[in-house]
Amino acid sequence: MAVDTPLHELGLADSARLIAAGKFTSEDLVRACLARIEAREPVVKAWSFIDPELALRQARDCDAGPSRGLLHGVPIGVKDVLDTHDMPTEMGSPIYQGLRPSWDAACVALARSAGAVVLGKTVTCEFAGMAPGATTNPHDPARTPGGSSSGSGAAVADHMVALAYGTQTGGSVLRPAAFCGVIGYKPTYGMFNRAGLKFAAESLDTIGLIAREIEDLALVTAALTDGAFVPPSAPSAPLRVGICQTYLWPKAEPESRAALERAAQSARDAGADVVEFTLPKSFSALTETREILNNVERARSLGYEWAHHREQISPALTRSVELGLATSDEQYRAAMRYAEQRRLELDDIFGKFDVLLAPSANGEAPVGLHYAGDPSFQGLWTLLHVPTISLPAGKGPNLMPVGVQMIAPRYADRKLLDAAQWLVARAGVTDDMA
Amino acid sequence: MAVDTPLHELGLADSARLIAAGKFTSEDLVRACLARIEAREPVVKAWSFIDPELALRQARDCDAGPSRGLLHGVPIGVKDVLDTHDMPTEMGSPIYQGLRPSWDAACVALARSAGAVVLGKTVTCEFAGMAPGATTNPHDPARTPGGSSSGSGAAVADHMVALAYGTQTGGSVLRPAAFCGVIGYKPTYGMFNRAGLKFAAESLDTIGLIAREIEDLALVTAALTDGAFVPPSAPSAPLRVGICQTYLWPKAEPESRAALERAAQSARDAGADVVEFTLPKSFSALTETREILNNVERARSLGYEWAHHREQISPALTRSVELGLATSDEQYRAAMRYAEQRRLELDDIFGKFDVLLAPSANGEAPVGLHYAGDPSFQGLWTLLHVPTISLPAGKGPNLMPVGVQMIAPRYADRKLLDAAQWLVARAGVTDDMA
Repeated sequence: MAVDTPLHELGLADSARLIAAGKFTSEDLVRACLARIEAREPVVKAWSFIDPELALRQARDCDAGPSRGLLHGVPIGVKDVLDTHDMPTEMGSPIYQGLRPSWDAACVALARSAGAVVLGKTVTCEFAGMAPGATTNPHDPARTPGGSSSGSGAAVADHMVALAYGTQTGGSVLRPAAFCGVIGYKPTYGMFNRAGLKFAAESLDTIGLIAREIEDLALVTAALTDGAFVPPSAPSAPLRVGICQTYLWPKAEPESRAALERAAQSARDAGADVVEFTLPKSFSALTETREILNNVERARSLGYEWAHHREQISPALTRSVELGLATSDEQYRAAMRYAEQRRLELDDIFGKFDVLLAPSANGEAPVGLHYAGDPSFQGLWTLLHVPTISLPAGKGPNLMPVGVQMIAPRYADRKLLDAAQWLVARAGVTDDMA
Repeated sequence: MAVDTPLHELGLADSARLIAAGKFTSEDLVRACLARIEAREPVVKAWSFIDPELALRQARDCDAGPSRGLLHGVPIGVKDVLDTHDMPTEMGSPIYQGLRPSWDAACVALARSAGAVVLGKTVTCEFAGMAPGATTNPHDPARTPGGSSSGSGAAVADHMVALAYGTQTGGSVLRPAAFCGVIGYKPTYGMFNRAGLKFAAESLDTIGLIAREIEDLALVTAALTDGAFVPPSAPSAPLRVGICQTYLWPKAEPESRAALERAAQSARDAGADVVEFTLPKSFSALTETREILNNVERARSLGYEWAHHREQISPALTRSVELGLATSDEQYRAAMRYAEQRRLELDDIFGKFDVLLAPSANGEAPVGLHYAGDPSFQGLWTLLHVPTISLPAGKGPNLMPVGVQMIAPRYADRKLLDAAQWLVARAGVTDDMA
């Protein structure tokens, strides 16, 4: 980073190092973030809950003691579907206005145990679904930030916080990251513990991260797993990269097509072995299969709200629940099996590739705040349980950010982060395109 | 059932039919269950929460209106790791004494929407783990009822309620069922929605049922899934049955060995194609792999409690968390992969069998209330995500119940219930052996 970078623009790992080195305090950093929020929140509306005094108290606690761990003193944002014992957890639903859980979600507790300050809760679409909150895109307040991790995407992009938690059931981490011009990371399904997450659809729900630096993803991964932090490093051997337009290519806007083509060319120029790759025909039902699982599991997991608060459920979610209720258990089981078979088939495909590159989203963030965008380009990989990352990859015709998606085999999250680091650092994806 | 069966001894489906036919009311039935509880609870200690007035109010609500669904008016017990909006949910831990969740767990809400009365909360081991509550075995109060669904097993066996929810992470549904002489059913992983369940280890946790009649399992399955109830019926074609001693056979007490041998003989006598089957060598690490997943995921999911209430966590659970924290993420991912590979290998094995028969537990319930028994014989199938059922299969040397376990391929839950019905009805397992 530049020496004179404002504190709130620093990455998470940089901040942690500088706090550890005594260059500034956690309180300094939290004050800088709060000042940025104060200035910009009236337009961006990224936060569902901020209590400056509570954030500062956590920071001063960190400053007053020895290092607690990898995240000592650094603030993070927490999507408001994740429980927090000291802040409300409202899940974007009027049903749970003011709800105060009795615990922290596992990912919140583990981050705090490693020293993190929870700056506040970020706006989520209703139950991490399709009905958006008030958040705007920091690049253009007339456009959606994407969803359902709307506040996390916007807050990170607007330099209000260096990293925020999201959750992805369809495309809820990667799409806001792409729309807001930052990095979104969905790990392999199940890798970040989900205790304390209000489920949307449990066979899909994955906790992920939105950040501006790849190493910040590795740092938080370490805090949430075994504490072993090694910064990502570009692989030495030439990467084998598959360019995967996916069967959704007809939906890709010119800016998303161009971004994928530029990323492929950059990878080639940097020495990667780059080939076109077409998903087998057997994969063509991924999108509808994900929708079956999503609808059925939402219908079941919202059993209580459906019975007691149906009038407070949005029309979009009502439709999803109704579709779920109309699906037979046999169809649901068949969808579960289909998804598993494709995961195994993709494992085999990855024998030929280190990573795949694919579009992150249809295109730029659409105009309007009523619709958080199409989850298709993210959702097919969510169903496949693979780790995936959206990297900023230039701008579209309206100068809005466009992303490119990189996908690795299940459980190869570390390889994904290393390859992403390579694409950014060596192939210079973001610099070429911004 | 016999005409003069006391109401509290009826099965769930029988009760539902008789309430629908106007033979008695929900209130009559709930009063009978409450009377049984009043008489026996001082010895059995199956319930962590019972409010007779609250139970009766639910029953009278049912009686006052039209049928709500498949479970109209019938009482169920709910293991106290499942959230209830109108009753405490304490999870067997002093940390959560008096906790009142804001919602019902999905399986509770869906049962209620189908008309069920929640009679009360049943005792669980601490966080569905190894540290037992005060529940005793209804057949001998000096012996454990098994765990962690201790109260559910004991309450159903003692005719306090016809069916109760359990959860299984190792052997927490099937072992108490076997020890208490009733039926335990763990469906295919993921089939009963887990929203509102406090996770123990999320890649293993499965909501299951404890009951006295196989058709009751099918009835509740219908209420929790797509509402289509067809009573189980014995298959017409001869079943292909594999007798699987498992690599744990040296741990099996003589009574468990004898029960499996008798079940095999009964199946043979009834016309099944019965052969011995030995798990491939590749399966020999199932037990230690399950322990890795269990420890790592418990350590993560208890992040909040570990940080804030460590002194209120039992020594047994402390040990599990410490083992989990000492495990590398690489080991954890390797364990996840190993488990998946064995699931696929078992899918192939099931090409040759309709069901497997295996021991339910080491043997009779051990003496003492400090230890809920060894989860090994149940846990290996839990890791494999297959549906499995424990059927009462006679008595041991101390006249305590012994079970036999029947296992079907993943997603073939219906075939499992049909085959179990066959084994009980046609092969007469329980009658031969009791």
